[in-house]
Amino acid sequence: MKAMGLVPSGFGADVEGRLLIGGRTADDLVAEAGGTPLFVYDAGLIQQKIGLFRAAMPPEISLHYAVKANPYTPLLSWIADKIDGFDVASAGELGRVVHLGLPISFAGPGKTDQQLETAIRAAITINLESEGEGERALAIAAQGSRPPKLAVRVNPPFSLKGAGMKMGGLASQFGVDHDRAPALIRRLIDAGADWRGLHIFAGSQALHADALIEAQAATVALAAEISEQAGTPPPEVNLGGGFGIPYFPGDQPLDIETVGTALAKTLEGRPKILGETRLSIELGRWLVGEAGVYLTRIVDRKESRGETFLVTNGGLHHMLAASGNFGQLLRRNYPVALANRFGTEADSEATITGCLCTPLDLLAHEVALPRAEVGDLVAIFCAGAYGLSASPQEFLSQPRARELLLQG
Amino acid sequence: MKAMGLVPSGFGADVEGRLLIGGRTADDLVAEAGGTPLFVYDAGLIQQKIGLFRAAMPPEISLHYAVKANPYTPLLSWIADKIDGFDVASAGELGRVVHLGLPISFAGPGKTDQQLETAIRAAITINLESEGEGERALAIAAQGSRPPKLAVRVNPPFSLKGAGMKMGGLASQFGVDHDRAPALIRRLIDAGADWRGLHIFAGSQALHADALIEAQAATVALAAEISEQAGTPPPEVNLGGGFGIPYFPGDQPLDIETVGTALAKTLEGRPKILGETRLSIELGRWLVGEAGVYLTRIVDRKESRGETFLVTNGGLHHMLAASGNFGQLLRRNYPVALANRFGTEADSEATITGCLCTPLDLLAHEVALPRAEVGDLVAIFCAGAYGLSASPQEFLSQPRARELLLQG
Repeated sequence: MKAMGLVPSGFGADVEGRLLIGGRTADDLVAEAGGTPLFVYDAGLIQQKIGLFRAAMPPEISLHYAVKANPYTPLLSWIADKIDGFDVASAGELGRVVHLGLPISFAGPGKTDQQLETAIRAAITINLESEGEGERALAIAAQGSRPPKLAVRVNPPFSLKGAGMKMGGLASQFGVDHDRAPALIRRLIDAGADWRGLHIFAGSQALHADALIEAQAATVALAAEISEQAGTPPPEVNLGGGFGIPYFPGDQPLDIETVGTALAKTLEGRPKILGETRLSIELGRWLVGEAGVYLTRIVDRKESRGETFLVTNGGLHHMLAASGNFGQLLRRNYPVALANRFGTEADSEATITGCLCTPLDLLAHEVALPRAEVGDLVAIFCAGAYGLSASPQEFLSQPRARELLLQG
Repeated sequence: MKAMGLVPSGFGADVEGRLLIGGRTADDLVAEAGGTPLFVYDAGLIQQKIGLFRAAMPPEISLHYAVKANPYTPLLSWIADKIDGFDVASAGELGRVVHLGLPISFAGPGKTDQQLETAIRAAITINLESEGEGERALAIAAQGSRPPKLAVRVNPPFSLKGAGMKMGGLASQFGVDHDRAPALIRRLIDAGADWRGLHIFAGSQALHADALIEAQAATVALAAEISEQAGTPPPEVNLGGGFGIPYFPGDQPLDIETVGTALAKTLEGRPKILGETRLSIELGRWLVGEAGVYLTRIVDRKESRGETFLVTNGGLHHMLAASGNFGQLLRRNYPVALANRFGTEADSEATITGCLCTPLDLLAHEVALPRAEVGDLVAIFCAGAYGLSASPQEFLSQPRARELLLQG
């Protein structure tokens, strides 16, 4: 028997023990969507997270949504009036939110001339990833009439400790090394750009408040130091994100109240040059990850050499991360359950696989479950972020997954 | 400096040192396709591999193509008159080849009733993965007028040694445990099915002839033993595939002549019950993997903390395996080159990344290259199998890659 992650809070069972998502049974949702595999996103749970953020963080912190976590169109439309801005990482993502009327910033290495031109025309903020990108943006903007809105993404000299992915403290394709940022800022301002400020992202998927508190304090100090050296206050500073969610056995939820209290203290004592700066935090996974459930149907139940396999009609083509093939060194089990026996005690062990003809297609390995049969629904939790859009959807030419936003 | 895999044979340079694919420069091919990122598949190199196979293997071995390795439509049409059958792993793959007039077999766990019905109507061979799937296929076929063509996929008691992926010798979602196969065969024949034989797949991506020789001999013996126990000769036996290609530093090409010679000897002494059996080998990666090149354009060249980063307009959304996130425990470098300086000696070190805003998007880490500039073309080799279709193409809403089959 292998352990699995804890089912996130916010999911219950009806009197018959069936999983409820947003108060409705999984079967009901599958019927509405027209079948499985299906991703359900419970907007009510996202709303709760937004509420937690607003309650915990100092009021001057803006909340941005990182579109890459989940770019499902109805979700973007729904979230638009509950947040303060979108962060996009491609021209394609920009196209998904440009009509929604919020401030947008565009970060990401390898922006092509065409993408820069699209961003400049849309008058959104471009977070420059290098001096070269800055020169190209200036050259493209020179052909138009408006000064481009430019910010600098900084590669900080520190990283977010314990982060699932470190994005600072080392050589990187992301941002400009902190010690070169002031010169680039001067160059942009001297060239007539509409100077927007700094973007500093030290890592993602951190669960320890202490690590985030330290990184945020260091980020504020670095933003001030760079601005002093550049001789100009930054209109905006994106403090990054990095708020993690529990996926695996032993993971504990992030204590966001403690992070917020500490950030308030950091901001009280902030250097003068940041006095008028609009500060934002950019979140994706933390907002939407736990709100998503991936539902698949068991197509086959089989025994092999004494082990039970539940073969579903889903797989890694929809949930690559749950198979352990997306940045994990060791495969561990996401939280899973039988949706139609959510209230039933586990009395057997089974391995849940997808339908792809590859041994990589493992959704849950040797987990404790109630006895499952063909036709039962499997729920994989923590499927709201980096799920469908981060998976090889065309692999083995299997049918596409459905998606459904539950607005309550 | 980190090592990279060896560039496969079959690629040259023109007098200016530019990479030639099928005798044409990479720039020329990009112009024809309309831009980068671009996958080019050189049919001439696939033809060479087919020729190698035919020359090395005993004449009674049929060659099947595993569509999952590369389902690009022009490639499937091109290869159809050069092989003896297609193996598909989904109804979607079946739809891609059903009109091409070759024998088709369908393996893969989790076949839904709908997919079984499609396969039965198309009168292709279904490789059953479990007793339950067998019963469902019989029930569905009973509603029609023709007996279904059924074979049994066997989970063998041995594995392919040194294989990149083992698919035998352990509990598995694939096939029926070998000791239960005879009973299932009897059940199918008694129910009036058109009995087609056995499919035995012990692993994939093996580079050592000895391991393949041993697995093939064991497969032939197992097929005979199961057939004896079932009391009926198998019309067909799919001996599996498992022929690997070199990707990484130190990998040596498979010695297919030695494999063929040994297989001929195995077949000479084959048990009588296999005397009339049609034998096939199912290959995907070995046929098309080395024929593919992924071409991306350098969008940014930047320095960070003393290291050089070449940021391209491609990335793991097209070549997930090259980023190390598809079944690899340790990330190693695929063979890469600057396409427009293919004949130039390496005199610098650089890291090549994609354009995705994630540290996972690494295409080559600290490799030796000629000095590269923005606008240069990067070639990533061994991109013909499990490339585009096995990658998260919609991740970060980046543009799709182009594909081009070079028919010479």
